[in-house]
Amino acid sequence: LSVFREGDFVELLVIEPERRSHRFVLKLVKGGKTSTHYGDIYHDEIIGKFPGSIVKSKTEYHFLVLRPTLYSEIKNSRVFRFATQIIYPRDWGLIIAFSDIHNGSKVVELGTGSGALTLFLSRIVGDKGYIWSYDVDPKRLEIAKENLNNLSPYKNYTLKLYDPNRGIEERDVDAVFIDIPEPWVVVKEAWYALSHGGFLIVYIPTFNQLKRVVNEVIRNGFVDLKVIEGFTREIQWKPYAIRPHIESYVFSAYILFSKKSYFIPRKLFEELRDQPK
Amino acid sequence: LSVFREGDFVELLVIEPERRSHRFVLKLVKGGKTSTHYGDIYHDEIIGKFPGSIVKSKTEYHFLVLRPTLYSEIKNSRVFRFATQIIYPRDWGLIIAFSDIHNGSKVVELGTGSGALTLFLSRIVGDKGYIWSYDVDPKRLEIAKENLNNLSPYKNYTLKLYDPNRGIEERDVDAVFIDIPEPWVVVKEAWYALSHGGFLIVYIPTFNQLKRVVNEVIRNGFVDLKVIEGFTREIQWKPYAIRPHIESYVFSAYILFSKKSYFIPRKLFEELRDQPK
Amino acid sequence: LSVFREGDFVELLVIEPERRSHRFVLKLVKGGKTSTHYGDIYHDEIIGKFPGSIVKSKTEYHFLVLRPTLYSEIKNSRVFRFATQIIYPRDWGLIIAFSDIHNGSKVVELGTGSGALTLFLSRIVGDKGYIWSYDVDPKRLEIAKENLNNLSPYKNYTLKLYDPNRGIEERDVDAVFIDIPEPWVVVKEAWYALSHGGFLIVYIPTFNQLKRVVNEVIRNGFVDLKVIEGFTREIQWKPYAIRPHIESYVFSAYILFSKKSYFIPRKLFEELRDQPK
Amino acid sequence: LSVFREGDFVELLVIEPERRSHRFVLKLVKGGKTSTHYGDIYHDEIIGKFPGSIVKSKTEYHFLVLRPTLYSEIKNSRVFRFATQIIYPRDWGLIIAFSDIHNGSKVVELGTGSGALTLFLSRIVGDKGYIWSYDVDPKRLEIAKENLNNLSPYKNYTLKLYDPNRGIEERDVDAVFIDIPEPWVVVKEAWYALSHGGFLIVYIPTFNQLKRVVNEVIRNGFVDLKVIEGFTREIQWKPYAIRPHIESYVFSAYILFSKKSYFIPRKLFEELRDQPK
Repeated sequence: LSVFREGDFVELLVIEPERRSHRFVLKLVKGGKTSTHYGDIYHDEIIGKFPGSIVKSKTEYHFLVLRPTLYSEIKNSRVFRFATQIIYPRDWGLIIAFSDIHNGSKVVELGTGSGALTLFLSRIVGDKGYIWSYDVDPKRLEIAKENLNNLSPYKNYTLKLYDPNRGIEERDVDAVFIDIPEPWVVVKEAWYALSHGGFLIVYIPTFNQLKRVVNEVIRNGFVDLKVIEGFTREIQWKPYAIRPHIESYVFSAYILFSKKSYFIPRKLFEELRDQPK
Repeated sequence: LSVFREGDFVELLVIEPERRSHRFVLKLVKGGKTSTHYGDIYHDEIIGKFPGSIVKSKTEYHFLVLRPTLYSEIKNSRVFRFATQIIYPRDWGLIIAFSDIHNGSKVVELGTGSGALTLFLSRIVGDKGYIWSYDVDPKRLEIAKENLNNLSPYKNYTLKLYDPNRGIEERDVDAVFIDIPEPWVVVKEAWYALSHGGFLIVYIPTFNQLKRVVNEVIRNGFVDLKVIEGFTREIQWKPYAIRPHIESYVFSAYILFSKKSYFIPRKLFEELRDQPK
Repeated sequence: LSVFREGDFVELLVIEPERRSHRFVLKLVKGGKTSTHYGDIYHDEIIGKFPGSIVKSKTEYHFLVLRPTLYSEIKNSRVFRFATQIIYPRDWGLIIAFSDIHNGSKVVELGTGSGALTLFLSRIVGDKGYIWSYDVDPKRLEIAKENLNNLSPYKNYTLKLYDPNRGIEERDVDAVFIDIPEPWVVVKEAWYALSHGGFLIVYIPTFNQLKRVVNEVIRNGFVDLKVIEGFTREIQWKPYAIRPHIESYVFSAYILFSKKSYFIPRKLFEELRDQPK
Repeated sequence: LSVFREGDFVELLVIEPERRSHRFVLKLVKGGKTSTHYGDIYHDEIIGKFPGSIVKSKTEYHFLVLRPTLYSEIKNSRVFRFATQIIYPRDWGLIIAFSDIHNGSKVVELGTGSGALTLFLSRIVGDKGYIWSYDVDPKRLEIAKENLNNLSPYKNYTLKLYDPNRGIEERDVDAVFIDIPEPWVVVKEAWYALSHGGFLIVYIPTFNQLKRVVNEVIRNGFVDLKVIEGFTREIQWKPYAIRPHIESYVFSAYILFSKKSYFIPRKLFEELRDQPK
């Protein structure tokens, strides 16, 4: 686990006076060379070094070599291809913390997209868990498959083309995560796929979708709804001027959590049945 | 996994017209009875039912029976005892998503507190991972031990009394998480405990501590600092009046992430050495 | 302007060890006495004192005497009566800063409510400006009139009962502010009331209303739309533990700003005409 | 007030399919011509038109002509020169709403900077109020004077060079606003300048300054402290995809509000005297 070996991913941070480190993620190949606009980097100078070491490029720039996080592999390597907008780490954490997805969970994902969340989930559920991830677009699925092949050491997932005639084929799963443009069309299917009391999670990027999703979720026998939005601010940590950054990414989506109920509580149902859709 | 059995935790939600469900978490005992101000609940009426079913109390209140999330067990059962303020799910997720803690990770925690985060981490790292959690207060540690015994099905953790003469005894761990009032005193120890490139995470509840932590982290050879704060708003989802709740919990702490560097980059060090502490 | 005189409002802050000052707002009357659960307060002990002085109640509590802000008069005196939820200072400022309402502006308000915003606006536009404020509910209007009589030293406003057959009677005003449950029904009228280029401001408390308002505003020839939401966090300033308060009021409404256009830009219009309403 | 006349400021919005209007602010001159990269604009085609009209450039681009807000004059005309970072409208409103600055208020500003806030305040306090604004830097003051000459129709302000030997010369003002790098050095002076009960407002861009300001304010006999931070999110209002913008300006500064007390409440003072500075 300690020194860099062939086949490892390495993250290089340029050490600049401004400390706004540019970064690259590479896969190490014996005898390999990577060209950057900070000069060529020879892989053999990294292989055998500890993470946290410093190497030089041929143009005398200094780099810190580190092990990349999953997110840095996604963002900074050329290995991960973007088929769609991805879900970001600030939401990854909220999704699992509020739905209790953990080591051993069985999860269905609708909307594989580029596979970024799939990668995260597969690392969380581990060998005892499993991820089935569906997408309607075969091209997108191809890209996601490549991304997972390249970046995941796990074998705990299956990427599947979504066939509307067959729907979700799994049963008794712990959680269903939906991130598609019309989430309401698959809510009933999610009910059948889930174990009793299992979690439905819907990722909802616009106000427009929110009401319709909520209504559909309620009328299909889900209970204990919670809808949240999370935002993070990054803090500028220069010791003489500590403060939040002026500008931050402060919106991504509303996230709905709810649980499959065995019987639809009629009272709730009636109360809501006549709501405008 | 499906129907409720003796020994299971069950979460009961009162079904009220207002839909502001009160909730209780119980451990099911054959022949057991629990008194609430919604009437007595007989455990035998729950045992054998599916999650998502409805049961009645003796005073004709209806309850949904569900499997509690970890957080609901912590908050709504009388099984979890609070020795301290705990860290909440909105931060649990950020902590692991930005530090890459996942299935199999080895983590040291300083400041066990009541053990809420320990419980969460033990579910994430699973059987292949391990958590060593230290606290200076033997009474607190006793409470945390009880909490973990009662709520964790895992055996992947050790709670230890912190002895300043011995410090952190582990080596080569993937992450060290610090949540103590004077985090700067253990930064150097964290460096020794971590694997090269491993993550130091510090939970920092006030502005006052932030500058001192940042300086100490930098001067001890950590790199690639990131400090964030996260907040979540909860959305009121009544279909005819969807909007964020007027009031929300919008602060808990600043969270610092950084990585152990093998050599301290001298340039950075010099730049910072003369900063006021 | 300096010492307290009969007829002045005074704000009393209880000086407690906890520094969580309770506060009362009174109108000073010679020989007056006010009972609080911190003891009786004799007005004559305040008359003639400077703001910032300290007085004692008969039960030996100490009070700071200050001039109340407008908002404290609204919240802490028994003089202001609440007919409705009011708009709060955190939004007062946004409303005028983004719509350029200032000394001398002429403003129509739809939805007087309790008159809190009317009070604020009348202090901003001053003697050279004017506020016409409409409400459909005669009882509410009565309460608002009393509130303005009691708290405003200005004569620059008229409160009017809204008659749907007559609509807004003013013309060429600088701004129209709408805060009613169905804001879309008066958008066309607002257009006629405004001067060319004048500001339409709509206060929108739910997601549900937002889309319909935006569509109506666009199709009625308003341009340069901007929709914002503002939130404030309060900082706990205890010198040894400075940090944001854990809980804050972080939602009130979305605020839309737009300007009356002389000709409806057909391109924009056509682009939007077929949008679902 | 209605049609555009020579000498008026006019704001031109480019009407593009993308509706991301670029905008320019011009001062109208008879026979004038302004070159933009959307083509030349002849002022005579605007003079005599109503705000909200449409004009064409020589290259067939369409522009909406509107009266600019104060902020648009600052940002989009070439008339306002930036000597420093300015304070933005999202804070202008908070400053006056929480300190009760209104028509007729007398205000001292320390730190004129480019004069943006001075411009805003002069429009709020009107002819019955007055602004005295100090800066230590004669060059900056020169720029601010020009900015105010060009953009303010009021004569209710004086810009002054700050002389540390003389300090603030005014007495009995309603509010003192401080926005300088070391605000603690002028807190005592602010006390002398203020009327009893008057408002001290401090604009504090970093965590580092916050503690020291708070301590200094308390020890100099100010009471009823409140520290806030405000943030606004802008909403993307496209009817088919309404949601907050992904990225927003969500930090500018902490703003402290407090009131001059006649006697320093000894209890509070003692409690705080021994705090580390």
